[in-house]
Amino acid sequence: MQKREQLYEGKAKKIYRTDDENILWISYKDDATAFNGEKKDRLEGKARLNNEISALIFTKLNEQGLESHFVERLSETDQLVKKVEIVPIEVVVRNLVAGSMAKRLGLEEGVELKQPIVEFYYKDDALGDPLITEDHIALLEAATADEVEQLREMAQKVNKLLIELFNNIGVRLVDFKLEFGRAADGELLLADEISPDTCRLWDSKTNERFDKDLFRRNLGNLQAGYQEILTRLGGPSCTK
Amino acid sequence: MQKREQLYEGKAKKIYRTDDENILWISYKDDATAFNGEKKDRLEGKARLNNEISALIFTKLNEQGLESHFVERLSETDQLVKKVEIVPIEVVVRNLVAGSMAKRLGLEEGVELKQPIVEFYYKDDALGDPLITEDHIALLEAATADEVEQLREMAQKVNKLLIELFNNIGVRLVDFKLEFGRAADGELLLADEISPDTCRLWDSKTNERFDKDLFRRNLGNLQAGYQEILTRLGGPSCTK
Repeated sequence: MQKREQLYEGKAKKIYRTDDENILWISYKDDATAFNGEKKDRLEGKARLNNEISALIFTKLNEQGLESHFVERLSETDQLVKKVEIVPIEVVVRNLVAGSMAKRLGLEEGVELKQPIVEFYYKDDALGDPLITEDHIALLEAATADEVEQLREMAQKVNKLLIELFNNIGVRLVDFKLEFGRAADGELLLADEISPDTCRLWDSKTNERFDKDLFRRNLGNLQAGYQEILTRLGGPSCTK
Repeated sequence: MQKREQLYEGKAKKIYRTDDENILWISYKDDATAFNGEKKDRLEGKARLNNEISALIFTKLNEQGLESHFVERLSETDQLVKKVEIVPIEVVVRNLVAGSMAKRLGLEEGVELKQPIVEFYYKDDALGDPLITEDHIALLEAATADEVEQLREMAQKVNKLLIELFNNIGVRLVDFKLEFGRAADGELLLADEISPDTCRLWDSKTNERFDKDLFRRNLGNLQAGYQEILTRLGGPSCTK
């Protein structure tokens, strides 16, 4: 597969065309951002950690019958994915109260929810990714009512699989953000990444954080936390 | 009916017990507040205008078969209502894009919605009355799923009646906020007030504002705008 010109540079990755028009080349970056880009840093090794973890998780989900845009790991920092049209909705699933939900609703962090909650946020940096309802999604024409139903079901399914996956390695899946895309045939596919950048992951016994809150809230070394997740998932240590 | 001790003082009214335990006495205040209390002023005559307009609208809704907590107008500034336990949800209905929705979703004010949108906000000043979804309502135990369905239906019904009512007096109903309460028998009743404090009301031809945006955004004389609504509704002019 040949890497062609860069299509897009996001906060955490660069995306390139390839010689196959249906396949994109993703290069993870060592950049960390939080609070809609207000807090920024370069954290060496983050690209490798997110690429390896995301590739591993997408592979494991695929083994459980859940397809995603993931095609192949290319290197420590790069992977191939199917080209999709990203749905401009961030789908957040919550199993415990944390982060913006705690603040928004005045609830204590760490409280277990009776059942998982699925939330939709409008993917728009300029607006600060606001929480939206299904009525807003229809108004914004961000997705059809059918697609919203599918997003909700797929998110619940991913949650079940991820809870088990992380439970097996002594980690609580507190909450996570998913993105989806429409493939050429219109089918909705899980897209973007699944990593400690997009999931809150706490040690099951100690509640130690292994996710971006390490950076966001200055709670400790981000790379050490992410490497802990990668190691527990059976992935490689740093080779450098 | 005897007025007894004060039970509560809100931003726009005082509530008193009466000698009937199922009836409360509401005294409207001349205070105007906006932005969760950040902007404040005393506007003489506002108490009378909101009391008269709310009493008139509740009476007209009642004539159309829609019951509310409203019992009786007592004076220019006071009315009797049934005692209810207020549901801690502000139900907002929108027919046109305006206010927080325009800001939140990056949409232009004045755009007509294809169909009315119902939103729920958690009634909590300390949290700034955040937008919430039905999942959040369940989590917060703010209302049962059945009640949420009823809130949505009642809000849509009120919207239909109010659109017609205002249309008949040359006013566009842009959006409005409703509150509901549980009566002694558990029945949900429309409560609080319906006035230019809680509705965005624009002249059908000129888009002139007759609502709290006059105060909120310094667009003109609040009392003149509210009096225009009261006069068009067939209510009295100021007697002083």
